Order: sequence, then structure tokens, then C-alpha cells
Amino acid sequence: MKAQIIIIGDEVLNGSIQDRNIQPLLKWLDQLGFECNQVTITRDREELLLATMQMAWDQADLIISTGGLGPTKDDITKQVLGKLSKSLLKESKTAQALVQELYKRRGKIWHPDLNHYNIIPEKVSVFDNPQGFAPGLMYAEAGKIFLATPGVPRELNAMIEHTLPSILEKHFPNIDRRQRVVSIRTYGIPEEIIFHELCPDLWESLERFGKVSSLPQIMGVDIHIKLNLDNDFQKTKDEIIENVIPEQLKEYIWAYDNKSLEEIIIEKAKIKKLKIGLAESCTGGLVANRLTNISGASSVFMGSMVTYSNESKVDCLGVDSITIEDFGAVSEETALQMARGAQEKLKVDIALSLTGIAGPLGGSEDKPVGTVCIGTSTNAEKSSKRYNFTGDRSLLKERFALAALMKILKTIDTF
Amino acid sequence: MKAQIIIIGDEVLNGSIQDRNIQPLLKWLDQLGFECNQVTITRDREELLLATMQMAWDQADLIISTGGLGPTKDDITKQVLGKLSKSLLKESKTAQALVQELYKRRGKIWHPDLNHYNIIPEKVSVFDNPQGFAPGLMYAEAGKIFLATPGVPRELNAMIEHTLPSILEKHFPNIDRRQRVVSIRTYGIPEEIIFHELCPDLWESLERFGKVSSLPQIMGVDIHIKLNLDNDFQKTKDEIIENVIPEQLKEYIWAYDNKSLEEIIIEKAKIKKLKIGLAESCTGGLVANRLTNISGASSVFMGSMVTYSNESKVDCLGVDSITIEDFGAVSEETALQMARGAQEKLKVDIALSLTGIAGPLGGSEDKPVGTVCIGTSTNAEKSSKRYNFTGDRSLLKERFALAALMKILKTIDTF
Repeated sequence: MKAQIIIIGDEVLNGSIQDRNIQPLLKWLDQLGFECNQVTITRDREELLLATMQMAWDQADLIISTGGLGPTKDDITKQVLGKLSKSLLKESKTAQALVQELYKRRGKIWHPDLNHYNIIPEKVSVFDNPQGFAPGLMYAEAGKIFLATPGVPRELNAMIEHTLPSILEKHFPNIDRRQRVVSIRTYGIPEEIIFHELCPDLWESLERFGKVSSLPQIMGVDIHIKLNLDNDFQKTKDEIIENVIPEQLKEYIWAYDNKSLEEIIIEKAKIKKLKIGLAESCTGGLVANRLTNISGASSVFMGSMVTYSNESKVDCLGVDSITIEDFGAVSEETALQMARGAQEKLKVDIALSLTGIAGPLGGSEDKPVGTVCIGTSTNAEKSSKRYNFTGDRSLLKERFALAALMKILKTIDTF
Repeated sequence: MKAQIIIIGDEVLNGSIQDRNIQPLLKWLDQLGFECNQVTITRDREELLLATMQMAWDQADLIISTGGLGPTKDDITKQVLGKLSKSLLKESKTAQALVQELYKRRGKIWHPDLNHYNIIPEKVSVFDNPQGFAPGLMYAEAGKIFLATPGVPRELNAMIEHTLPSILEKHFPNIDRRQRVVSIRTYGIPEEIIFHELCPDLWESLERFGKVSSLPQIMGVDIHIKLNLDNDFQKTKDEIIENVIPEQLKEYIWAYDNKSLEEIIIEKAKIKKLKIGLAESCTGGLVANRLTNISGASSVFMGSMVTYSNESKVDCLGVDSITIEDFGAVSEETALQMARGAQEKLKVDIALSLTGIAGPLGGSEDKPVGTVCIGTSTNAEKSSKRYNFTGDRSLLKERFALAALMKILKTIDTF
């Protein structure tokens, strides 16, 4: 079954806001077995939007649009949906009842002066918006379905979770939810080296099982195999891991599923009952932020001393000010003392520290922008290591954080 | 002048990766005065990609594609560009020279076994990739230009900064770089209340100056006015601020430009020579991370005590364990002590603290998920306040962080 997505709104096309709807929608459609061949971001201009909607309607079984449902003048999705469905806008009692309910749910009272949410095209129906005031709009005809959803990511996400699944299951009773993608996730090795030097036959070997794609990410290269329909997922995955992936690649692989690195860390540490703490300088809290994005982090992660100034490294972590003077704040020596300090202060089993230069200022010939020293302190290991990365400030922060998270994962494995 | 963007790659359409190229490209094109009516994300399948390219070529003056330039089998942009330009793939000495240079720059040697970057369509030329190995591809004909750029955001961003401007200036000598968008950025008031209750005439009043759009963001509602071409930017902006925006809206406005909240905080604190510190619990380092995304943060931001466990709140911030017992870790009392502790430990002028429940677990009837207490400690002010927000874990973390950043900005203004 084919799906298309239409993102509506000048705000996205002006670059004023970063779209946050496309990926959740695509991920969800992929899980349901829909093939989405195209996503279009388009302006809220009637003619253009109608042409885009019409083309999607001709090509796909399911079309989902986001945006343009609000109360302001640039919200025209409803009008255009009227044209697509060739039906006139009319007051709808069902729509009005739902709108009243949505307002009531959030402790407010709807009245017709507020907006025209009760007026919809005759051939269009409304559906629930668990997080907002504007109902979703649905137009179904000839086995096809058009779902107009809100542009606010919170509202859309709530619909994906609570409202849309039952609508889709009703319209497409044969949805195939079986898992089909095997992921091979590597770190620390470029795409080119994997496929041209380390394992030149890998691509062909994997192609026997399904469509292969190679996805270079900040995390490293992910290789995805979308299994052919006749392959059993678990059996094929085991076969690939055991018999297809060459040994020389295995040391670079950190996962075979789609969990995030921080999820895996929290899970493994929880099982081993390990407590983790951090001392961050150059990453400014990013590593802690990523770990605490995982629900349940609190049973594993105790805290992070984000010591951005030299003084705070001394005051909060007990780093020796002479060490900073002699070797610099960005040094393996300082990193080691930061990690020791964090382990002690936060009373943890594993403490990691980072001190580096994210730039664009602050680099020197000896320690250029991109230098980072990562310290590790456990009861068994006291070590620190210097790395060099490239990128702008935000990318460097991400790469530093990633290197630290990878080191945490490796350290957990030693327990 | 019209532009279109084509994002190529299965990895985006499967939802495996979040696109990070669309927004920077759109922002940049908007600054240059290009009107981008449509962005298409499409699969790396020859027929589909060719149709998409052909349609964009027919409709726009400038087309930029990202992705599909790499060495693997699913990289087909070059082949399809050959079909679009109706020219055959051939070895190119210029291409080969550039590829050799790109490899040399990064300390490597290119040879033809590695990839076919030296083979390009006859009517296509190559351009520099400051951060990668695969050159950009350009096809220009009849006043139009197609630029194929890499999908890796780091490489694309380097091109936007260093390579593409001169190419565009050469092809479109009349590019208009004048600033044209006035932003009115609000916090703490819904779109509907602004336009229907607080200032029902605002939209019409603003429309006299240009095209108005209303952009609800996590930060609050941004109102953008894209000025008509005959308006002088600064004069019109002043006129809007002084004579058009009603007084009752002004207390909700935190900026009239596109700087981020953290940028404004760092700038203002720098001017007033203020030092800022944090004590974070529920945000887990997010506030610190945002502040340290700004280059130059180190002269203002001293650090953040990310105390995720109760024990670390006591050990690292000197919170009284009896306070936690009596009032709970999420309480105005604990928040106040956290802020005091951070001010003292980090020796700062302004310390903010956050303790709350980001969920999905940990809520209670009395303190549901979404509760956060924010403490402030300066020499003149010791206060704390409880807020309630809605959303999932990641949205709540963002909202908590935002409330704290807004409070920092307000506190800076009292100095």
C-alpha cells in the first residue's frame, strides 16, 4: 500500500521552523508496512496546495497532511479539502459536538466567535485531537483516505498514538505489522572503508536477504536490510549475524536493533545494577541530557557536574589547580582528575569526564578545536584518552558526547 | 526567483534518520530572496527520481538536491542527472583532479578502485566539497541551474557556507540579500488568545506592511511579517513596534529578531558582566546544554550541577535532606535550596534551579507529571515557583528548560 505525506505551511518553507512531523509519520507508516514514496512540503497557497493534494490523491492509497487546520487566515487546508472532495463547506453538528468536547476537555467553552471549526466540507468528517482544539479532518472515497492532521508536533504525535491507528485499521484491514528491517550499526569506521576495504563482498551477501541501504550518521554507519517478504525475521537476523557479517567488522558493531545508544546504556546498567555519573566541560550537559531523555534513567544516572569554568572544576570536582596550570584544562591529566572527582562526589560505579574544545574559538596549534580528553574512573580503571574530531561547534559537541557514551557502554561491558 | 529542493534517500523516507538538511537550505534560500514553493523527499529509485527532478526543473530556476552522491549502489543521483541533462557518463579529467585534491586534503590518496567519482555526465560539472570526498555536481542550461549536493549535513553545511554562494552569485547576479522579515516573538500566550481576544485587529494592521504568518512553536507564538518590497526594513520594523503592536501584547513579547533565547541571554549577561550557574534535576543538563551551544558562553556560564538523585542534591548542592523528606524532591523548598547551593558552589550572580517530573512515571495526584519548581538565587532575590506543563517526556524537558531560560532573561533585566 502506498502512502504520501504533505507538510503544509510557509513557516517550514521559510526555514523559520524545523519540521518535526515528517520523521515520526514516516517511521510509523513504515512500521505499518505502508510504502511512502514521497513527502512534499508545500506553501499554504490554494492553487499550489490543491495541485499537490490532487497529485498525491492520484498516486497513493493513504495521504496524510499536517498543518493549516488552525484559526488564522493562513490556515486553508479545510477549504482546499473541500475542493479536492468537490463538496461545499457547511455547518456540521457532528463537528460542532466534537469541538465543544475538545474545548470542554481542556476546561474551556467553545463558541462560534472563536473560530469556524464547526464548518467543514460536506464529504469530510472530523476525528479526535487528543492534545488540541482543532479536530482532524478525514475524506474517504473509493478505498482511498485523506487525513488532515494538525501541524503542532505534540498534537500530531498524540494522534499517531491514540487516534490514527484505529482509523487506519478500519480502512485497511490487511495492514502488515511484521518487523522487516535488520540493522547493523557501526561506530568509528567510514562507509567507504567498510564496503571497499574491510568487507568488499558484504553488500552482495546481504542483498540475498532483501534491499540493502547504507546510512552514514553522526553515530557511524548503519546498514539496513529490508527483508524480502518470505524471510522469517528472527531466523534471518540470526543467520546474518552469525554467518554473513565478517569477523573483522564485528568489533565496530555496537547494536543490531534500533534502540538508541543511551537506551542500551540505561538498560544494561540497570541489569548490572551499576550507577553512572559524569563530569562535563565542553559538552556542557549534553551527555547528561541524552541519558536523561530515557525514561527510567534515574535508577542508573546519578548526576553530572557540568564544570564549564576552571574554578568550578577545582571547587566542585576537586581538580588540582596546579594540574590545570601545568597541563591545561583540556588535558588527559585534568580529565582523569575530573572523572575521579565525579566518581567520588556522585558515589557511582562508573564516572566519565569530558574536557575539550568545541570552538570556534579557543583552539591552539597544540590543541586545535575538536580536541577532547575523556577520563574514566571505576574502582578497577583510572584512565584518560585524547581524541580529535572535526566539525562545527554543535557537531563537535555531539561527537564528543558520542565518544563518551560509547566509552560508557564499553565500560559497562567490563563489569 | 523560484527554487525547489529535492531530498533523496530511502533512509529519510523510512523514518530511519531525521532530515537535517531541509531547514538550513530553506533558511539560506529565503535570505537570498529565493522563493521555495516546494520541497520533495523522494526515494532513490531511478524512474521516480527522474520524474521528480524533471518536474522541479520545469518549475524552478534553481534546484538543489541532497544525497545519493556516495560510493554505494543506492547512490544514483549522478546517473539520473545524466538522464535529466540528456548526456552520457564519461571519465572527466576535471572531476578526477578535484577528487584527487579532496582526498589529498584529508591525507588520503584516491585511486579508481575506490569509487567512480571521476566519471560524470558530459553536460555536468563538478564543484568543491570542503568537508567530504564526493564532489558536488552542477548542471546549468537555459538560465536554470541544478546543484546536486551531499546528504551528510556537515558536508552540505560547509557547501552552503563556502561553495554555493559564489556559484549562485555567478548565475543569478541580481540576488537580493536585503532583510525583509520582521518577527514578533511571544511567550506564554496561545495563538487564539492573541488574535481573537487580546488584539483582534492585529492581523489586519500588520497586513498593511506585508504577508503575515503566525507560527506556534514550543517557545510560544512567533508572528512574522514579510515586508512588501517597497518598505524600508528598519523604519517599518520601528513603526510596527512603536505604533502597531498593542500595549497589552507587549508583556508577552521577548524578542523582535531571530536570535535564540540562549543567544540573547549570553549577550545580555556578557554586557552586564554577570555570571550564571544552574542546578538541574528533571532537565538533566538540557538548560546547560542549550546555553553552551552558544559560542562564547564560557565567559558567562560557569556550570550546572546536574543532581538527578536525591543524594547528589544533598552532597553536591548542600540541600537539607530533611527538606527533601518533608516537602519532597519536587518542591519549591527544595528548588530554593538547590538554587542557593548552586549560587554558592559556582560563585555566580544568578543561579537557577529546576526540579520536576518529566514522566512518564513518577507523577502523583498532588504532583502530576509536568510539575516543575524553579528556584532563583541572586544576592537580591531568593524565590521559587511551581509550574505545570503538559506533554511527553521530551517536550516537558524542553518546556521546563524554556521556563528556566525565560526566568534567567527576566532576572538579567533586573540587574
